[in-house]
Amino acid sequence: MQRILYTILAAFVMALALGPILIPWLKRMKFGQTINELGPQSHKVKQGIPTMGGMIFALPALVAGVIFAPAQADWQIVAMPFVCMAGFGLIGFVDDFIKVKKKRSLGLTPRQKLVPQILLSIGIGVWAYLHPLIGSSLVVPFFGVEWNLGWAFIPVIAFVLVGTVNSANLLDGLDGLLAGTGAIDFASMSLICALLAAAHPDMESEYLATAVFSGAMTGAVIGFLRYNTHPANVFMGDVGSFAIGGALAGIALVTRLSLLLPLIAFTMLISSLSDIIQVAYFKKTHGKRIFKMAPLHHHFELSGMPETKIVTMYDLTTMALCLVALLGFTA
Amino acid sequence: MQRILYTILAAFVMALALGPILIPWLKRMKFGQTINELGPQSHKVKQGIPTMGGMIFALPALVAGVIFAPAQADWQIVAMPFVCMAGFGLIGFVDDFIKVKKKRSLGLTPRQKLVPQILLSIGIGVWAYLHPLIGSSLVVPFFGVEWNLGWAFIPVIAFVLVGTVNSANLLDGLDGLLAGTGAIDFASMSLICALLAAAHPDMESEYLATAVFSGAMTGAVIGFLRYNTHPANVFMGDVGSFAIGGALAGIALVTRLSLLLPLIAFTMLISSLSDIIQVAYFKKTHGKRIFKMAPLHHHFELSGMPETKIVTMYDLTTMALCLVALLGFTA
Repeated sequence: MQRILYTILAAFVMALALGPILIPWLKRMKFGQTINELGPQSHKVKQGIPTMGGMIFALPALVAGVIFAPAQADWQIVAMPFVCMAGFGLIGFVDDFIKVKKKRSLGLTPRQKLVPQILLSIGIGVWAYLHPLIGSSLVVPFFGVEWNLGWAFIPVIAFVLVGTVNSANLLDGLDGLLAGTGAIDFASMSLICALLAAAHPDMESEYLATAVFSGAMTGAVIGFLRYNTHPANVFMGDVGSFAIGGALAGIALVTRLSLLLPLIAFTMLISSLSDIIQVAYFKKTHGKRIFKMAPLHHHFELSGMPETKIVTMYDLTTMALCLVALLGFTA
Repeated sequence: MQRILYTILAAFVMALALGPILIPWLKRMKFGQTINELGPQSHKVKQGIPTMGGMIFALPALVAGVIFAPAQADWQIVAMPFVCMAGFGLIGFVDDFIKVKKKRSLGLTPRQKLVPQILLSIGIGVWAYLHPLIGSSLVVPFFGVEWNLGWAFIPVIAFVLVGTVNSANLLDGLDGLLAGTGAIDFASMSLICALLAAAHPDMESEYLATAVFSGAMTGAVIGFLRYNTHPANVFMGDVGSFAIGGALAGIALVTRLSLLLPLIAFTMLISSLSDIIQVAYFKKTHGKRIFKMAPLHHHFELSGMPETKIVTMYDLTTMALCLVALLGFTA
């Protein structure tokens, strides 16, 4: 377990150190956020704050994760969450880059973003399906059973990956919101993997490897919070939100715990659901709205709740749900 | 370990539920904060926000801690942290009550506060000294040795108790500052006690009891954060800060880990030290100041750092130091 603690600390220190180097550089390169015209009025003050800050945690997480990965673990299990994080992060990076260069708030068109995401997800799904330690079944938490999906495992995993990445992206709308809830998720997954490592001696190294990667994400994202907390000095951008979504779904994939995601990543889920419900209702009623604005955190904002309070509420909800998740892995 | 998780969740839910009952009542009873005239100018807006909110976490922590305490543990070891928390909390309660009723910012005079604190601390010190499972020695973390203080254990513990309680009180100066750092401390101590319970079968129930109490404090304080985070709807008051300081020192006392406090409660320590240095320097130089204002968080505030950023910085520092502390209890 010391290995996990050292990983968290190393990633944390690296992210803290990277902030004062990257933030002024992003500013000089004019990677400032072009605020979405569809967002709340009050967000106009955020114009000009640099984005693409996700690199502040993505790079330290990669470095710390590689340094502290246990040497004797199956290399594909070690690599898969890295590939998910870096792969989706890269798609987000391209999107951010185009967004800034074209001075458009929306970057790639939805289709241009979705096609590479789906292709990457299917590739990862096939890889996992063919791997002897993952295969075609998911663990059903709290019930101690496994659910064999057969070949349907591949589209299901692709859906989970694309869904998680885009939900994380939607949740990234308030200072410290995705970073805070994400850090709690990664810390919980790291602890769950450490408990699984202790309980399964035959898979100890593999679970430990995932605990280390999750710890690297925890420490790095917490370090990033130093700069992203309200009032934010930097935004994570799509490179950041895609990396967080990809990393989380990747950790769930190699531990076959994807069914745990709706619980621990509940705040991501409601961001997506509120968005889908809002659009569907709007179309069906030809112009009526259920929420004042979607995703849900903007609804709370327009209802008069201070930004910092909404972020705390989401953090506390995530903590409580992660504690419930931990109940499934303890005696 | 499930017992600890249930305790955290129960205390969290109780504190969340108690907030909307107690806060309006405190307002009606006019237990509003009279802001210290010596604090920063910007704090004047906080006039009228109810104080004594510490009851929102102290009561749920007591209830959850009692409900989930393991039945077979030594009852004195179970009771000691409760006594520390409730005893100092009660002194704080009296102070708050007088403060509000007299409309004075400072409540009891320093001496009126200190005398009962010292008496309570000596009593607790004697109790611990005479208990066969505690005795006169402290664990030296990271070195695996014990330091036998003999009868000096009693004044040392009294000093630790009084020092921790008053340092916690000094740290309680920004929205969510003491609650956030305190929650991190309690969560860490709960995890450390759970690890000690697994490592020491002969003391398993006693360590588990302390892990449960620490978990109760964690959950309750996190629930309180819902209302105390910036912009605060309620302040914890001396009843809250004394209860947090007392609980933390009490947990350290029964686990004989008092020497761990300067590390995990470092932010409390620097609050006290900065205050002492400021006053000593001021007296020695006949009017010069080292810090723009003491305790240190007010110095950062007057240096132009936003309140929420200072709180995050203190939280992150505490997290990192708690991770370092955990290194001393893991393989």
